[in-house]
Amino acid sequence: KIELELEAIEKGGFEHFMLKEIFEQPRSIADSMRGRVQADAGLLALGGLRDYLDKLAKSERIVIVGCGTSWHAGLVAEYIFEELARIPVEVEYASEFRYRNPIIKEGDIVIAISQSGETADTLAAIELAKSKGATIFGVCNVVGSSIARATDAGAYTHAGPEIGVASTKAFTAQVTVLTMMALAAAHRKGTISDSLFRQLLAELESIPAKVEKVLQSASKIKEIAYIFTYARNFIYLGRGLNFPVALEGALKLKEISYIHAEGYPAAEMKHGPIALIDEDMPVVVIATNDSSYEKVVSNIQEVKARKGRVIAVTTEGDTHLPGMVDFTIEIPKVHEILMPLISVVPLQLLAYDIAVMRGRNVDQPRNLAKSVTVE
Amino acid sequence: KIELELEAIEKGGFEHFMLKEIFEQPRSIADSMRGRVQADAGLLALGGLRDYLDKLAKSERIVIVGCGTSWHAGLVAEYIFEELARIPVEVEYASEFRYRNPIIKEGDIVIAISQSGETADTLAAIELAKSKGATIFGVCNVVGSSIARATDAGAYTHAGPEIGVASTKAFTAQVTVLTMMALAAAHRKGTISDSLFRQLLAELESIPAKVEKVLQSASKIKEIAYIFTYARNFIYLGRGLNFPVALEGALKLKEISYIHAEGYPAAEMKHGPIALIDEDMPVVVIATNDSSYEKVVSNIQEVKARKGRVIAVTTEGDTHLPGMVDFTIEIPKVHEILMPLISVVPLQLLAYDIAVMRGRNVDQPRNLAKSVTVE
Repeated sequence: KIELELEAIEKGGFEHFMLKEIFEQPRSIADSMRGRVQADAGLLALGGLRDYLDKLAKSERIVIVGCGTSWHAGLVAEYIFEELARIPVEVEYASEFRYRNPIIKEGDIVIAISQSGETADTLAAIELAKSKGATIFGVCNVVGSSIARATDAGAYTHAGPEIGVASTKAFTAQVTVLTMMALAAAHRKGTISDSLFRQLLAELESIPAKVEKVLQSASKIKEIAYIFTYARNFIYLGRGLNFPVALEGALKLKEISYIHAEGYPAAEMKHGPIALIDEDMPVVVIATNDSSYEKVVSNIQEVKARKGRVIAVTTEGDTHLPGMVDFTIEIPKVHEILMPLISVVPLQLLAYDIAVMRGRNVDQPRNLAKSVTVE
Repeated sequence: KIELELEAIEKGGFEHFMLKEIFEQPRSIADSMRGRVQADAGLLALGGLRDYLDKLAKSERIVIVGCGTSWHAGLVAEYIFEELARIPVEVEYASEFRYRNPIIKEGDIVIAISQSGETADTLAAIELAKSKGATIFGVCNVVGSSIARATDAGAYTHAGPEIGVASTKAFTAQVTVLTMMALAAAHRKGTISDSLFRQLLAELESIPAKVEKVLQSASKIKEIAYIFTYARNFIYLGRGLNFPVALEGALKLKEISYIHAEGYPAAEMKHGPIALIDEDMPVVVIATNDSSYEKVVSNIQEVKARKGRVIAVTTEGDTHLPGMVDFTIEIPKVHEILMPLISVVPLQLLAYDIAVMRGRNVDQPRNLAKSVTVE
């Protein structure tokens, strides 16, 4: 009984740890920036990177390794590093990387991402990369974890303990930290202007408030979830930086609702997956107002023409899509580079609500462990 | 009436073009090697590459672009180029590549893969890469197509006309040609021994007979398909070179049967997708006897422990897996590097049989076009 009461206190009034952790994101993102970003002074300082920032900025190739949600954070980081710092990035599944004979040269940078810092495949990938002369950066949430200890440098996410098996606040904290790393490298390297640097710092500081705003749509998202409780399948679509968000949204739904959901880059639909689309296949599309907006709208039209029901994540003020799709979830405007930090949040809630309505054990889904410390 | 008879003649006694094309693969693979490979003399000559082979061998980075099945051929090629020629390869969705500001330096190599040679996104990706100073290689099936004309060099696949919308023989021809390109580059660069070079040439020459042998399992595969006709979902798993084969097998099933099938690198299962596994989720595992065999077997055990029904593609003589999984499909032994050419064939047949049993229009699945010449 005492244990149950303790758990209730730890959940802080929320029904599940996962929901609590979704709602903690304004704070966990802010915590991950605290003491590191000061936009008005144009300052960005990552203590754990100090001695290695030059090496990162001058590197000719970055390899990012991770598993599951951390791998998705790596895909987001790939876009950001390539766009801002103009360094070619390759993102590898840790489990694939470690069993190949990967091409790593002296001077290459490997960034390992792991919430727990104990992921077995990621740890093994690091050891292999080290033996080939790479410099290893870590992005972990647990201080003093095996991966944190095995890396040369890195930056912790300050998301606080994550109890729900399906990762939420750790993901947004990872993306926050990786964005800061890319910004620091780009600034040092001179591949972005000082004004863009300052603009992005200011926009970073605005993220917690914007995530807070998304969370205010929780009841609307719950209504949408209610309608799709019985769906057997889902497709998630996005382009550019929102493609990894589509993958992550689909993974959340898989993990906790056991609905088969799959993410795809929107333009790949017509190369096969669109054959799946009919009235039984709901499609979640991240259609924020960015450089690929027009293209995504045309992908939505293709889905609608095949009777697919569309839930679109749109930017505030979009008057076009509400008339075209079945449901919209509005999120605040933000610079395109930072969009994943916001656009992933409604997808976390959608997965959570559907799973709860299906009566799933949200915090401890079947077959899954929080940290995968075995191969 | 005459038109119908003509079509029957063109189908050469097969019920569908797709089945005819699957069965043509021993010949289309041989045609793609004809005049190019002569194993007993240790010769490998790709005419369209001659003036550019040095450039390919000396390149520091290769970017492969494609869509759909061609993108999967690119993923196979990534493993082969990296392993044999030790050149870092990045594989990009053409649609994503063209709308980013991709990092391409003078001297980088871009390989564009497209059966039709008319894929709009791939063509646009080439033009962008060209404008940034890359050297472009093409791997196309249609002589004189737009992509073939836009490239600096390349090698045609000689698969013959592909009529079925779901690509089969074009895929194996693409992988054959890309393997020859990687072998030629590795030989020129000196990153493989002469004996391995000759061994792989000899094994390449043995592929058509081995594919023929897989095709003799067609009736056994049909029996398995009969049992899974009503499945609503499928997961396909593979590791290493068989991971892209898993993606391709899942895509075939999606395209023509409209069953939601998804491919995954086997070790990623435990980072989320394994929550989907129960008695309703059949799992196809490519478990050939290669360097990742033991690991794949342990992934199979995890699936079986969750009551998933497993269809395993195994290597001849494997006495271990038949007692562990529900169904096995045996394929001949071949060097690991060449395995995708053989392991994909049973998956093509499985998708075909299930689609036919579900009464689908196999050659012209709903919503799909053979060449995607629009964005």
